[in-house]
Amino acid sequence: MTQIELAKKNKSSELIKWIAENEGLPLNNILAHLRQGSAVILKNRVHKIKRPCAIGKGLRVKVNANIGTSTKKTKLSEELEKLKVAIKFGADTVMDLSVGGDLKKIRRQILKNSDIPVGTVPIYEAAVNAQNKKGSFLKMTEAEILDVFQEQAKDGVDFFTVHAGITQKGLDLLKKNKRILDIVSRGGAILANWMIYHRKENPLFKYFDYILDIAYKYDIVLSLGDSLRPGSILDATDKIQLFELKILGDLTTRARKRNVQVMVEGPGHVPLSQIAKNVSLEKKICHNAPFYVLGPLVTDVASGYDHISSAIGGAVAAYFGADFLCYVTPSEHLRHPSIEDVREGVIASRIAAHSADIAKGLKSAIKWDREISFARKKRDWKKQINLSIDPVKAKLLRGLFKRKPIDVCTMCGNYCSIKLIEECLRV
Amino acid sequence: MTQIELAKKNKSSELIKWIAENEGLPLNNILAHLRQGSAVILKNRVHKIKRPCAIGKGLRVKVNANIGTSTKKTKLSEELEKLKVAIKFGADTVMDLSVGGDLKKIRRQILKNSDIPVGTVPIYEAAVNAQNKKGSFLKMTEAEILDVFQEQAKDGVDFFTVHAGITQKGLDLLKKNKRILDIVSRGGAILANWMIYHRKENPLFKYFDYILDIAYKYDIVLSLGDSLRPGSILDATDKIQLFELKILGDLTTRARKRNVQVMVEGPGHVPLSQIAKNVSLEKKICHNAPFYVLGPLVTDVASGYDHISSAIGGAVAAYFGADFLCYVTPSEHLRHPSIEDVREGVIASRIAAHSADIAKGLKSAIKWDREISFARKKRDWKKQINLSIDPVKAKLLRGLFKRKPIDVCTMCGNYCSIKLIEECLRV
Repeated sequence: MTQIELAKKNKSSELIKWIAENEGLPLNNILAHLRQGSAVILKNRVHKIKRPCAIGKGLRVKVNANIGTSTKKTKLSEELEKLKVAIKFGADTVMDLSVGGDLKKIRRQILKNSDIPVGTVPIYEAAVNAQNKKGSFLKMTEAEILDVFQEQAKDGVDFFTVHAGITQKGLDLLKKNKRILDIVSRGGAILANWMIYHRKENPLFKYFDYILDIAYKYDIVLSLGDSLRPGSILDATDKIQLFELKILGDLTTRARKRNVQVMVEGPGHVPLSQIAKNVSLEKKICHNAPFYVLGPLVTDVASGYDHISSAIGGAVAAYFGADFLCYVTPSEHLRHPSIEDVREGVIASRIAAHSADIAKGLKSAIKWDREISFARKKRDWKKQINLSIDPVKAKLLRGLFKRKPIDVCTMCGNYCSIKLIEECLRV
Repeated sequence: MTQIELAKKNKSSELIKWIAENEGLPLNNILAHLRQGSAVILKNRVHKIKRPCAIGKGLRVKVNANIGTSTKKTKLSEELEKLKVAIKFGADTVMDLSVGGDLKKIRRQILKNSDIPVGTVPIYEAAVNAQNKKGSFLKMTEAEILDVFQEQAKDGVDFFTVHAGITQKGLDLLKKNKRILDIVSRGGAILANWMIYHRKENPLFKYFDYILDIAYKYDIVLSLGDSLRPGSILDATDKIQLFELKILGDLTTRARKRNVQVMVEGPGHVPLSQIAKNVSLEKKICHNAPFYVLGPLVTDVASGYDHISSAIGGAVAAYFGADFLCYVTPSEHLRHPSIEDVREGVIASRIAAHSADIAKGLKSAIKWDREISFARKKRDWKKQINLSIDPVKAKLLRGLFKRKPIDVCTMCGNYCSIKLIEECLRV
């Protein structure tokens, strides 16, 4: 039985108990959300991981780090190092988005070396296989696509992005309506090309039931991809985006009926003023399925600093109810991310997620801030550094300018307000 | 006459006309806001600068960069380099917060080399002078404090932070009510110490009229400092903070009556859920005076990345009506900022300010995003880089992995969604 199926029968599992304990919530609370589909647990039955994770209502907001090769950057060792860095700096999940090199080997190595859930986008491998074997990704067959899902499931992938929401009708709408950037989803663009070339319906939509069978068997969470998400803040929340969202809502219902756990992916590029609306639309149209957002970026001009643009959007989205933040690195829109980019992306998203947890009143989140604030009051630098979101960087910055031990920092020096006020209030 | 005085008489000036043109707004609009005090123009009569700036309702959100020496870091050359970097990367104003070295010389050099408005906190110099000459900052006299205001005004400082809102009553409240970090404002801590030591009222409060005389003479904008701002998200929006805010509201009225332009400073450390409230309280209690916020930081745990925590808070604050963002650098809470920190702080705050401008519908802001999005669609890399918020970094990141000219980036390589979709929609 899948976790949602157990919950529907009001049965628990070791996994559900572990999640409840880990989140500091009553078991019944977790069961209720799993049952309703407002929470999911990422863990393939056959994947051995130490830290599976739950995503959804009332839970700590989670952070995903995308790693994986590009056609231009194919080193496995670098991607494994990114995995290590993502885990070290606190990512809750990773996605292997590889499209270059030996995809099977890379995926299996990532699955083996990860103690957190791993997601993939199977359509990438189907496309790359066809490109390698037949000279064009357009030549992948429906059967070949489904075989990739089957194989990746067996390998232990914990969640799949499934771009099942882009249909022929969606493409018609795209052609009829003006937007600046038509499709900025890689999976969406691959499928759109295939659909136009073959004049056929999206195979992920057509064979959605088959994908549900696989997901059910391994208890894989389906993450319904938003192929038609906006790629510019000027395209945000347009007809095309919302048309696809309705299809994702229908697919959510179908998955739940079949006892498959499901979450929904969201934009992308969204002005601050439209973020709350985007979250509430997803919750309404997709029946409270956990919302997994990419950013959102609140401006298109921040190339080189898109992790910051994304942290702004992610914090606001999570505050309004988004459950899962996909990081964006400083290199977004410019290049394949470096190892350092992964670290910066993870930390920026964690700041966003944590600030939303605080704002929503999550006790464990507030406790963390209380502890570091008391350490700050006492000028206990060791504790302040250990409690920082990235102790390695905090220690480095503090250390650089510290020639001898001082109980203040070099910012205010002798005029440290905390020290001054402590002394005078003591009088 | 000061700019507010002119506006009250419905008269314009070359400066007001320049501001209207620069903001792309009708002159009457600017005049109305200056008259009501909901906008101010930062420019000391005697300070020659190319780019004075207006702050307030309907205007582009502005960004300030704090520079200046510490008692532990006193190099003038480094601070002048920070000034250059702050201007290069787009700060609208700088504040010289020096407390180490030859303060007069540093200030005069910064004023001379800046083509944007310069602010200071005169109480710092008064304290440092007393410390140097008498062995304790507590020994500064009221007359000496006021002399510093006089001298800095004559030197051409465009705006002063005046911590006039912390009074004996405020200190009583601070002693009676629990908060984690009592005072985190350097100026506030200096004054509180002085007030407790001398058992006297805050001289900036007591002699506020005298300070108004100086400000009027040079048309200096007073920025009413919030000495009792929270230093932890757990202290946010407490009684103590709001008590001081009411005093700042009264001082705002007094300043306007005397035709002195005024803005109000705000926190600090504020959870996402309390930012909108903080902005609306300031607007209400301080009669729509422009709101100048420090951050706000949305969590206390982001040492090393406080520019990101601050960008999240700043974007949300500006979206809800804050007018002026003081940057926070990655080194906040850890050390005196480096030159690179200044750059990162400025860019992070500019992203926050710009994202709020977009969300509020500012046409010039949206135009920028439209242009870069079209460049992205065309894969016009030169234009994309030039239109990035920091073209130097964007160029560096793009260049690092580009061995030969390619029209995609190394992120998706051959599977660039923009290129793929362009090709198939063309068919």
